[in-house]
Amino acid sequence: MADDQIALGPGKVDLLEAIEHTGSISRAAQGLGLSYRRAWTLVDTMNRCFKSVLVEGSAGGKQGGGAHLTPLGKQMAELYRAMEARTDTAIQKEWKIIKRSLKSPE
Amino acid sequence: MADDQIALGPGKVDLLEAIEHTGSISRAAQGLGLSYRRAWTLVDTMNRCFKSVLVEGSAGGKQGGGAHLTPLGKQMAELYRAMEARTDTAIQKEWKIIKRSLKSPE
Repeated sequence: MADDQIALGPGKVDLLEAIEHTGSISRAAQGLGLSYRRAWTLVDTMNRCFKSVLVEGSAGGKQGGGAHLTPLGKQMAELYRAMEARTDTAIQKEWKIIKRSLKSPE
Repeated sequence: MADDQIALGPGKVDLLEAIEHTGSISRAAQGLGLSYRRAWTLVDTMNRCFKSVLVEGSAGGKQGGGAHLTPLGKQMAELYRAMEARTDTAIQKEWKIIKRSLKSPE
C-alpha cells in the first residue's frame, strides 16, 4: 500500500504531536524536516481516513492559519504511542535473542 | 532502509517457512509468487545479516539443489512468529478503538 493510504504510522503520529506542540502545520513540518506540502498531504490523508478529522484549523489570531488536534486526534496519537510501548515490552524477550544472532546488533 | 537490508520481516519469514515446507528455494518462490532471483536475494540478505546462515543448500539426492533451514533459521522464524503473536495480543485494546474510528474498518 502507498504510504499515503495508511491512516496512521510513526511519521504521521510524529506529525500529530508536532502540530499539538507548535500549533501549526508549517511549524510542525519545519521541526520534522518535512515540506509544508508533504505535511499537509499527511494531515489530509489522516483526516480522510477517520470518521472525523484529527487536525483542524485554528481560527484567526495574530498568527492566523494555525492548526490543532481535535479530541479524536489527541486520542489516536496517544493510542498509537500506547501500542508502540506495549509492543516494545511484548517482544523484548524474542527481540533480544534475534539481536544477539545478528552480525551487527541494531 | 531498503527492504533488502532488513534482516527479517514478514516476507522473509514467509519465505523461510516455505523453504522449510518445500525443501527448495525455487519451490518456495513459486508457492509465494516470487521470482527465483528475488527469493534467492532475500535468502542471501538473511544469510549475510546473521552470524551464521539461516538457509543452506541440501546435498544431492534425486532432486539435487534443495535447500533447508539451519537450526538458527528455524529458531529465527519461530521467534518472529512469536513476536507477531505477542504484538497482536498486546495491541488489541488500542487497535479496536482505532479501528472503530476509521472510516472503512480494516
